[in-house]
Amino acid sequence: MADEFDTIEQDAKVEEERPDEAYQLDRKAVSAILYAVDIEDQAKLIELMDPLHPADIADLLEQINAYDRSRLIRLYDREFDGDILSELDESIRDEVIAVLTPQVLTQAVRDLDSDDVVDLVEDMDDSQQEAILDALEDADRLAVKQALSYPEFSAGRLMQREVVMAPEHWTVGDAIDHLRSSSEEDLPDQFYHIVVVDPRLHPVGNVTLGKVMRSRRDVPLLDIVEPTFQVIPATQPESDVAYAFNQYHLISAPVVDDEGRLIGLITIDDAMAVLDEEHEEDIMRLAGVGEGSLSDRVIETTKQRMPWLAVNLLTSIAASLVIAQFEVAIAQIVALAVLMPIVASMGGNAGTQSLTVAVRAIATKDLTGSNVWRVIRREVLVGLFNGLLFAVVMGVVGLVWFGSPALGYVIAAAMVVNMVVAGFAGTVIPVILDRVGVDPALASGAFVTTVTDVVGFFAFLGLAAAVLL
Amino acid sequence: MADEFDTIEQDAKVEEERPDEAYQLDRKAVSAILYAVDIEDQAKLIELMDPLHPADIADLLEQINAYDRSRLIRLYDREFDGDILSELDESIRDEVIAVLTPQVLTQAVRDLDSDDVVDLVEDMDDSQQEAILDALEDADRLAVKQALSYPEFSAGRLMQREVVMAPEHWTVGDAIDHLRSSSEEDLPDQFYHIVVVDPRLHPVGNVTLGKVMRSRRDVPLLDIVEPTFQVIPATQPESDVAYAFNQYHLISAPVVDDEGRLIGLITIDDAMAVLDEEHEEDIMRLAGVGEGSLSDRVIETTKQRMPWLAVNLLTSIAASLVIAQFEVAIAQIVALAVLMPIVASMGGNAGTQSLTVAVRAIATKDLTGSNVWRVIRREVLVGLFNGLLFAVVMGVVGLVWFGSPALGYVIAAAMVVNMVVAGFAGTVIPVILDRVGVDPALASGAFVTTVTDVVGFFAFLGLAAAVLL
Repeated sequence: MADEFDTIEQDAKVEEERPDEAYQLDRKAVSAILYAVDIEDQAKLIELMDPLHPADIADLLEQINAYDRSRLIRLYDREFDGDILSELDESIRDEVIAVLTPQVLTQAVRDLDSDDVVDLVEDMDDSQQEAILDALEDADRLAVKQALSYPEFSAGRLMQREVVMAPEHWTVGDAIDHLRSSSEEDLPDQFYHIVVVDPRLHPVGNVTLGKVMRSRRDVPLLDIVEPTFQVIPATQPESDVAYAFNQYHLISAPVVDDEGRLIGLITIDDAMAVLDEEHEEDIMRLAGVGEGSLSDRVIETTKQRMPWLAVNLLTSIAASLVIAQFEVAIAQIVALAVLMPIVASMGGNAGTQSLTVAVRAIATKDLTGSNVWRVIRREVLVGLFNGLLFAVVMGVVGLVWFGSPALGYVIAAAMVVNMVVAGFAGTVIPVILDRVGVDPALASGAFVTTVTDVVGFFAFLGLAAAVLL
Repeated sequence: MADEFDTIEQDAKVEEERPDEAYQLDRKAVSAILYAVDIEDQAKLIELMDPLHPADIADLLEQINAYDRSRLIRLYDREFDGDILSELDESIRDEVIAVLTPQVLTQAVRDLDSDDVVDLVEDMDDSQQEAILDALEDADRLAVKQALSYPEFSAGRLMQREVVMAPEHWTVGDAIDHLRSSSEEDLPDQFYHIVVVDPRLHPVGNVTLGKVMRSRRDVPLLDIVEPTFQVIPATQPESDVAYAFNQYHLISAPVVDDEGRLIGLITIDDAMAVLDEEHEEDIMRLAGVGEGSLSDRVIETTKQRMPWLAVNLLTSIAASLVIAQFEVAIAQIVALAVLMPIVASMGGNAGTQSLTVAVRAIATKDLTGSNVWRVIRREVLVGLFNGLLFAVVMGVVGLVWFGSPALGYVIAAAMVVNMVVAGFAGTVIPVILDRVGVDPALASGAFVTTVTDVVGFFAFLGLAAAVLL
């Protein structure tokens, strides 16, 4: 009942009282759409879907179940837009494509820009890819195939091929006359810059359309190029492309081949999408979740999460082997078993803090050869200070709880040791993994927790065995 | 030696062999700059800094130590650009401002756009803010003060006030004539769209400059507006602004006041910066690191990390209290102490996986009322299946290691229970926190690990006490 009430009032107060809900799909709208599907009212469905952006339609398809999804797509039929496919999460894209009739699919794909087709087909198996490519016109098919010849996740896959360029001797007047005399088909759908090129087609500068508009006709284009100009090699990884756009506030940047010749253009909206995906990947990898998404099925998700759990099982068993060395001590002082998880857990948390900071700093290029030792020293000192603080707290807890000052000293000392080690391992391990070419977001967690578990149990139980027995 | 060799060859092979190092500050360049500072060679310093973008200079200042930083800034003197201040991490901004002479600071601030000044002063204390505002010209000071009247992290703080607008009856020809007759000062430095407004100044559409350039003079602007058009309320949270830009591939969007009147414009580069910060914050919060950055000092970092460690200490003690209930069982069967961390750790990992997926899905508006129950069911089933798998593995390990089939059954059963609970708690806890208005990224981790620790120890030790004793 509470939910129904919320929904009814939602339209009126969405902005003021629930600002977090902006841009979220309206539950009432979703229900109305599903109802239209239930009663197979195609006209109503099309009317309800009309105001939705393809990105919102894709979100809608991701959020409903597979049965509703296929019924909706069949009823929506020819209205199905190619952009919906581009926006769909990969986990259900194949399923959606399988539901579309060949005619609808062909039309949908033909409406897409070539860089969107590349994004669509790059993860498909060969036969499916062939089917999509066959649907394209010759020029587009060639463009897509050429883009696919660049490595996955490279600038070459990300770029659009349509670029507005001008020779370096042109003036503002030349550029305006050229643009206004070009037919609509010769110019890209969206463009914000003119790329100035030398006779060998090497880009030498970017001129914004705004500057062209507000400058006198006799001004040479070279006099009004943007102060910040970055040329992107086609083989550059897309993560670096996203970094460059964010670092230098680029709106578009020319892409060049091995010889430095202009072959395409990347715009900031594509770079923003890459930045978003990279972050998503980092967060998921830090948590050991793998490539998963919310629309994956149970079995796929189970498989995706298994490797990390298996690694964690091995590291836990390693920690247990350490505990097993001190069975005699534990049998004599059961308090050790009660307290030992605290030392390991505090080390694990401190280590995760350090490693998260290090992994992010590596990704944002803020942790470099110039400052790595200063960062390590800082993390070790932070571990030491927090270790000392929580050592005092735990020493008192140990003393009060079990009435043994010696137990208090032991847990305090183990806490300091483990948190210093956590700060060191949490920084050094991601740095080393990065140097040897392993993604630190993916692998650091397992190593760091192993270190803090082993050191935590060993320091606490070892000290206890030495001091208390 | 190896490092030195790398540095010398770096220029030649940076693109091919170490693609990850693109856009990273060159160690050789940093050394040369610091050497120029050492010998106080101002001309050399200015020459070396000249090719660097303000964002790179900011990175350089962040990566060197405080002593080098202040010497460099003093020597660089009047060359210090306002954009460097905008790009600097907040943690060292105050320190850098304190080093600048009043004249240099005034000049630096005057060169900035008003939205960058807002970003600069919004976190300053009143007296510092006053000093910066006094340095501005009257019109700019008014603009900054008005922006500051909007809530922190809102669209009103993010927008620029300069907008190119056109009445809705204009044609392409009218717009071109207007733009070309405007003086350079009347138009923004960078602009990509013309916002079409009705007589009450309500935005009704966006026209790209590219479309203006390639359309006939007699075409009405309203005929060539972009199909996707989003108007942003000034009070909208900046995270929603970033979401809208990413979701709808916007390049710029008009900002309106409470009455729907056009008051400013947000461009995608600012939205991209917000997206980047939001992600950073999510990652840091998930790891319990707080607001920290790499340039923070040891004491600040120690303080930032303390709260999360304190929470973790409390949850560990809660887990220890559970263990303490079973001291008798542990004293009799020490193997329980050896194996119990495995059950807790596997639950903690599975819970972290579920909660990370849930936290991300909430942030990207993919987890909504329409699919929350389906997601919970999926996470519980994933927990069940992985629980069953690892239960078999651990059952065998328990049997082989300690030669007790009963111990194997107990640990297997506890594993299944804890991983199902982990899947449930990992999804439900972030959803509930979000509903009651607490950031799930910040608080979920502590709750979920408490649940998996307590349930893990209780299920394993409780079953063991019931079955084995």
